[in-house]
Amino acid sequence: MYKMPVVRVYAKNEIVVEIEVQKCSNLLDVLQKNSFDIEASCGGKGVCGKCKVRVKKGQKPYLENLTQEEKRHLREDEISSGVRLACRVEISEDLDVFLKKSSEKTNILSHFTLNDFEREDNIIVKKVVLQPPSLDDQKSYELRLKEAIGDCNLKILPRTLQKLARLKEQEFYAIIYSDEVVDVKNSSLAFGLAVDVGTTTVVCYLVDMVKKEVVDFYSFINPQKKFGADVISRIDFAKEKEEGLFILQNEIIKALNESIQILTSRNYISQDDILRIVFVGNPTMLHLLLGVDPQTIAVSPFVPVFTESVYAKPNDLGLEINPAGAIEILSSISAYVGSDIVAGILSTKLHKSPKVSLLLDLGTNGEMVLGSSSFMLACSTAAGPAFEGVNISCGMGAVEGAIDSVKIENGKVHFTTIGSKQPVGICGSGVVDVIAYMLKEAIIDETGRFCDKNNVYKSYIKQVNNQQAFFITDSVYITQRDIREIQLAKAAISAGIKTMIEYAKITEDDIENVYLAGGFGNYINPWSAVEIGIIPKKLQNKIILVGNSAGAGALLVLLSKKMEFEAQEIVKKVNYIELSNSAEFNKFFMESMIFENLS
Amino acid sequence: MYKMPVVRVYAKNEIVVEIEVQKCSNLLDVLQKNSFDIEASCGGKGVCGKCKVRVKKGQKPYLENLTQEEKRHLREDEISSGVRLACRVEISEDLDVFLKKSSEKTNILSHFTLNDFEREDNIIVKKVVLQPPSLDDQKSYELRLKEAIGDCNLKILPRTLQKLARLKEQEFYAIIYSDEVVDVKNSSLAFGLAVDVGTTTVVCYLVDMVKKEVVDFYSFINPQKKFGADVISRIDFAKEKEEGLFILQNEIIKALNESIQILTSRNYISQDDILRIVFVGNPTMLHLLLGVDPQTIAVSPFVPVFTESVYAKPNDLGLEINPAGAIEILSSISAYVGSDIVAGILSTKLHKSPKVSLLLDLGTNGEMVLGSSSFMLACSTAAGPAFEGVNISCGMGAVEGAIDSVKIENGKVHFTTIGSKQPVGICGSGVVDVIAYMLKEAIIDETGRFCDKNNVYKSYIKQVNNQQAFFITDSVYITQRDIREIQLAKAAISAGIKTMIEYAKITEDDIENVYLAGGFGNYINPWSAVEIGIIPKKLQNKIILVGNSAGAGALLVLLSKKMEFEAQEIVKKVNYIELSNSAEFNKFFMESMIFENLS
Repeated sequence: MYKMPVVRVYAKNEIVVEIEVQKCSNLLDVLQKNSFDIEASCGGKGVCGKCKVRVKKGQKPYLENLTQEEKRHLREDEISSGVRLACRVEISEDLDVFLKKSSEKTNILSHFTLNDFEREDNIIVKKVVLQPPSLDDQKSYELRLKEAIGDCNLKILPRTLQKLARLKEQEFYAIIYSDEVVDVKNSSLAFGLAVDVGTTTVVCYLVDMVKKEVVDFYSFINPQKKFGADVISRIDFAKEKEEGLFILQNEIIKALNESIQILTSRNYISQDDILRIVFVGNPTMLHLLLGVDPQTIAVSPFVPVFTESVYAKPNDLGLEINPAGAIEILSSISAYVGSDIVAGILSTKLHKSPKVSLLLDLGTNGEMVLGSSSFMLACSTAAGPAFEGVNISCGMGAVEGAIDSVKIENGKVHFTTIGSKQPVGICGSGVVDVIAYMLKEAIIDETGRFCDKNNVYKSYIKQVNNQQAFFITDSVYITQRDIREIQLAKAAISAGIKTMIEYAKITEDDIENVYLAGGFGNYINPWSAVEIGIIPKKLQNKIILVGNSAGAGALLVLLSKKMEFEAQEIVKKVNYIELSNSAEFNKFFMESMIFENLS
Repeated sequence: MYKMPVVRVYAKNEIVVEIEVQKCSNLLDVLQKNSFDIEASCGGKGVCGKCKVRVKKGQKPYLENLTQEEKRHLREDEISSGVRLACRVEISEDLDVFLKKSSEKTNILSHFTLNDFEREDNIIVKKVVLQPPSLDDQKSYELRLKEAIGDCNLKILPRTLQKLARLKEQEFYAIIYSDEVVDVKNSSLAFGLAVDVGTTTVVCYLVDMVKKEVVDFYSFINPQKKFGADVISRIDFAKEKEEGLFILQNEIIKALNESIQILTSRNYISQDDILRIVFVGNPTMLHLLLGVDPQTIAVSPFVPVFTESVYAKPNDLGLEINPAGAIEILSSISAYVGSDIVAGILSTKLHKSPKVSLLLDLGTNGEMVLGSSSFMLACSTAAGPAFEGVNISCGMGAVEGAIDSVKIENGKVHFTTIGSKQPVGICGSGVVDVIAYMLKEAIIDETGRFCDKNNVYKSYIKQVNNQQAFFITDSVYITQRDIREIQLAKAAISAGIKTMIEYAKITEDDIENVYLAGGFGNYINPWSAVEIGIIPKKLQNKIILVGNSAGAGALLVLLSKKMEFEAQEIVKKVNYIELSNSAEFNKFFMESMIFENLS
């Protein structure tokens, strides 16, 4: 039998994708069609030399048919280790392809840890053969199907009846979800999607509902971002711009359909094989997803239109999966504490442990939960976009060329950039590192002011627009005003934590685990976070990075009815603290402006 | 306040329609826009003189602004009684308009009798004012709405949340159906449709679900008719023609949407105000409505794809009502006994009486039910299209110009035509009348053969294509072969009735009521039906014309959850008799070929 070559692609995130390709396919084409972001500014003509990938055949570097263009563009050590120009490689046999870190544009958080949990059959796939009819047994094919499944109370929608009319007496598979036969078909494929809709990034996990495992994921920058970086600016856009709400909804739906297209095509399944989507996100993102005007979220008394779970059909939102499939938007807690946090609680099991834990989700906003199996408090602080690089002189998002980690020691400054590119700016984790080391090395004092007495780093400090600034490179620096921005942001989070501790009538010593989740929260250096006082020093050794705990929780709900129920219970148990009129919070906020964890 | 003139239109079927119109509207325009079928071959220019209507202002003939064209086209007695040319009348005040019988193209059955029944609130309209939020009470508007309604378990779809976001703190109306808030809006309007999808005609009743009354109806010829007159030819079209199934579904959906458009616009409501549709029909029509291939209905062992109730969303079928609304296709009994018969049982209350009744639905097919509160039998006979005028030499449908009743007495032939037009053919009820009188006057004998000895009607009998034929007019006649066709059709129905009586182990004397329903069944002269032996002579005085009992049953289900449940119970109770392999039926069929009720 003829076997098509298989290309196994190892991307930075350690997800391995296997792609079956036609013989003589061009490697660059294959990678680009499968949404790997490979730079090829010449359009694949062998001219620019940018589409470098490392190719192996088995354990050996793949050196077959090396072209003149490759010899011109690649160094000898590159060639001997299997580096090739993807545009010059024709695939004639099975190959392993390793992408460079730089081929991923952004630090989108998509990994997570799934602990053991119950995965029961909430989507049932059943092979059926209907009893053939006769003049003595004329009952409908629908009834025969229900009898074959063993449940005569199942509902069947017209589209499934249409398909049943075609399959009739063949052997086929019935897909059952909840009280409905959602599909009948020749294959036993049944997939679901768990989607975390973040303000900045969206992650879609593709789940095989039969094998009960994540088979792929796809993440992208929320395309609404071009209309506003944070939730407030999006709400303003929806309110002030004509058709604004429609535009924002349309953007996210379009992007989700593109993701579905990519995930289905690269996993060789059809859109009809996807039968359920579970969405989590902050309430504003969920309002925009459903096309529900979120403007009351932005103004006091901060009331969302909905917080409870919404169950819809794919057509209600224009999502291109099986039309008989089910869409669930997981329930939220309040206007600023969304189902992403509920999912985070669920996946960290914070609500099940008798010990008190703190869950910090540091993204564009800072949401936090303090609690255990006996109580839960939640609040949201407007940490603001400073941690995302916004309102910082040389700030930028966590994309290629951003300084993402910095070390200042022995009179020297060391840093890394995303994609190992030339530094063009600094992102949140870099800013926090710089300030942490500036405190450690006494370049600034506990009030955040530059210390004139420090001489070791004198050469790094220059004036910019009448302010003192610390220069990491010739063009990337942190000004006095930047430090003030970070002070405000870190004070908000720190005060939120302290307020919850006070409300709970516990002390920092009572906290056993600090779960750090969310985009920024997961790339931040925990030491730096403690150093500048985001997280109390006493909790330093209790920090656990939980990755995309929201996505993990969405997966749990997708895979388990019991988990869905547990999520609803969590929402009922959590007490939300509104910080905007909390005297305690204001007091702690003022106190937290100072950098307290000086060494 | 300015008040628009109101035109009250009295159509033949005694349904009165009130239409509010702009001052100076043209009456012909108004009537045509509101789907009254007025002939105006000159296009409303006052030339053809065909658009005659009788117009009154209060009790008096309306003679204002009589035009030269009207004086030319109308007789003096017409003018004095208020007859006008609709194209010449400008409406400047309230008028009553009476349409001639001829302005209705076809004898579409749309009247019916609704007995007293329970109409409980299955669609609830509730005026609500939400509690205003505060910083101490930040719960969502959705929760406020549920609290205002008093049921926190209600579901709400995205579209309703979108509307809720716009209404918020205003006073508004919530529309609740089943476990869902299907709409929130400024008006309290809530309508439903009960639709009887016949092979030949479709009737849509518009129901005010708040007042619980039928406010209007609209009927039309099933546009699928052009692809086949009976169910078998439609099934063949769906099977053999590429895209045939899709074409047939599309035709009916398009026509239904047009009806919805007409009913909503002439009742000044919006499509969003229609929240539920209940469909009844024979199984083939229901399969085509849902786009489900009905081909197994046409061949032994005659198995439908579905018989149970189907619950769908408007978008599943492309029906243009409130997208959150509900579509119900009422359950059927077997491949040839549909939900129209279930609805007929429901509305005649056959299933509730301890006395045995017979329900005969004589349309394109002949379906019948024999039963009482203790048992029910149903069967379907291929009465065939002869009763609809098909396969009859001069046969035609019950449309304008068809001879619909005939009397043969004292050597003379009398007849009427639909629309009092020149006779161009003969429809089913006319054919049955002719044959009944030919038997009575001994023009034919009990075997159906022409009696040579009869001299009184000699002048009416001539040879056509080597056959004897009875001439009603110069060009409309009934041949020996036509009589054989009717013998076959009547034998099928008669044998069906006898088979059921035998199965039930009762006699004709045990039957208390014979409900005659359906298109043909309702226009047939009961005396003639008995005379030619369709209905046993003993039952002659027990015949009750029940009009569109199917539509009446659909209305009951639309208005009452209890009735919906009762319909399901009826389906479970009815025993279907398959006649195609019944020895009893074959025996009775042969016996019934003879005309038995000779006088």
